[in-house]
Amino acid sequence: MDVDAAVFDVFGTMTDWRSGVTDALAAVGDRAGLQADWPAVADAWRRRYRPVLHRFLAGELPWRPLDELHRLMLDEVLAEHGLTALGESERHRLVRAWHRLSPWPDAAAGLELLHETPVLTATLSNGGVGLLTRLTKQAGLRFDCILSAELATSYKPDPQVYRMAAELLQVEPRRLLMVACHPDDLEAAAGAGLRTAYIPRPLEWGPDAEPVDPPAGVDLIAGDVMDLARRLAGTGTVNTPVS
Amino acid sequence: MDVDAAVFDVFGTMTDWRSGVTDALAAVGDRAGLQADWPAVADAWRRRYRPVLHRFLAGELPWRPLDELHRLMLDEVLAEHGLTALGESERHRLVRAWHRLSPWPDAAAGLELLHETPVLTATLSNGGVGLLTRLTKQAGLRFDCILSAELATSYKPDPQVYRMAAELLQVEPRRLLMVACHPDDLEAAAGAGLRTAYIPRPLEWGPDAEPVDPPAGVDLIAGDVMDLARRLAGTGTVNTPVS
Repeated sequence: MDVDAAVFDVFGTMTDWRSGVTDALAAVGDRAGLQADWPAVADAWRRRYRPVLHRFLAGELPWRPLDELHRLMLDEVLAEHGLTALGESERHRLVRAWHRLSPWPDAAAGLELLHETPVLTATLSNGGVGLLTRLTKQAGLRFDCILSAELATSYKPDPQVYRMAAELLQVEPRRLLMVACHPDDLEAAAGAGLRTAYIPRPLEWGPDAEPVDPPAGVDLIAGDVMDLARRLAGTGTVNTPVS
Repeated sequence: MDVDAAVFDVFGTMTDWRSGVTDALAAVGDRAGLQADWPAVADAWRRRYRPVLHRFLAGELPWRPLDELHRLMLDEVLAEHGLTALGESERHRLVRAWHRLSPWPDAAAGLELLHETPVLTATLSNGGVGLLTRLTKQAGLRFDCILSAELATSYKPDPQVYRMAAELLQVEPRRLLMVACHPDDLEAAAGAGLRTAYIPRPLEWGPDAEPVDPPAGVDLIAGDVMDLARRLAGTGTVNTPVS
């Protein structure tokens, strides 16, 4: 495995969206005097995500910023759960909860290790540039660059998003590593010519979730970001010429 | 002065392009057995830059990555200075010298101070995303985000570049600060609705250069990036809602 740059999925792979979103829902709900199974509401919100992405990729929905998609899905989920008492400012606050999630315990230290290597690191998320900049700053996640599907006016797993990352970083796709805990993200990255690393995040959907199998054909399976950093040490040359 | 984010010019404002490019020219020239006034060649290369940008903005040239512009200008400058003995790989190396410049002495420490405030920081340069990612990593310049005119398929001082930065960072233009040592950059940023901070870099063009006057109407004049960071302390809210 010899790569010049590594791009990282963020929601799930580097950050614990479920705890952060659950906490935000519970805080907003408490203040409004509402009761609900808040982790279940968080899960329901997130579960609407993939179908919406696939409707976009099928050409059924125009592109719009992730904050707006989050808002549309939130409105549906609150209606489903009898939580329509939450008003405009509370909904805005909940959409912004995705801008300030906690990192997994190994994520910040692993990125610091990678920062000392020649391998360039960047986010590659469906979250927008502003969201990712706030999130990584507050979570202490030191990336060398912030890349977002927003810059391709698209969403992962559109192959254009992965190719855009390689072009913007000026690396060949085969020298760019996509790091994620989601098999579909890695499969799409491999389809676009990238190398792939899988990191399991068994707690992404909470302690009772079904285990996820690593995707077939992945180039590397790492225990966490620290392990990934150790295994990438010695690779990469910051000044690799682009042919 | 209350802002949520600050974007920084890079060539001249944060890094000493003249020393880095002169050193690269001298190293490549020495190996080829060539002699020249290398600082003068560096200055001639850089002086071709603004006229090319203005030809682009006037619609006379199509957009192309800064590396390609650097290469075209280099070919002309080498011809002018009788240095056509430099071949393809040397020219490639020289274009890449713009990817690894040294920072001014205050730049890294000033950015670290700003990193501890809620103010988001980003590059806003005509250098490409890959160039800026390599340059900032190697120079130890810790930005929260890498923004480039490349993302607007344009160049500063096109007002679209400044507006794009505000949109991507999800801040209102009047809460975004452009930091530069070049009056024309700041004047264009102000014209796009941004706030402006001027940092003098009297050594940008070497020890014998004429002093540059601060632009009229600038919002803030700082001695260096450390001074800027101290004066921005206490401003900004990472989670400022976007209206």
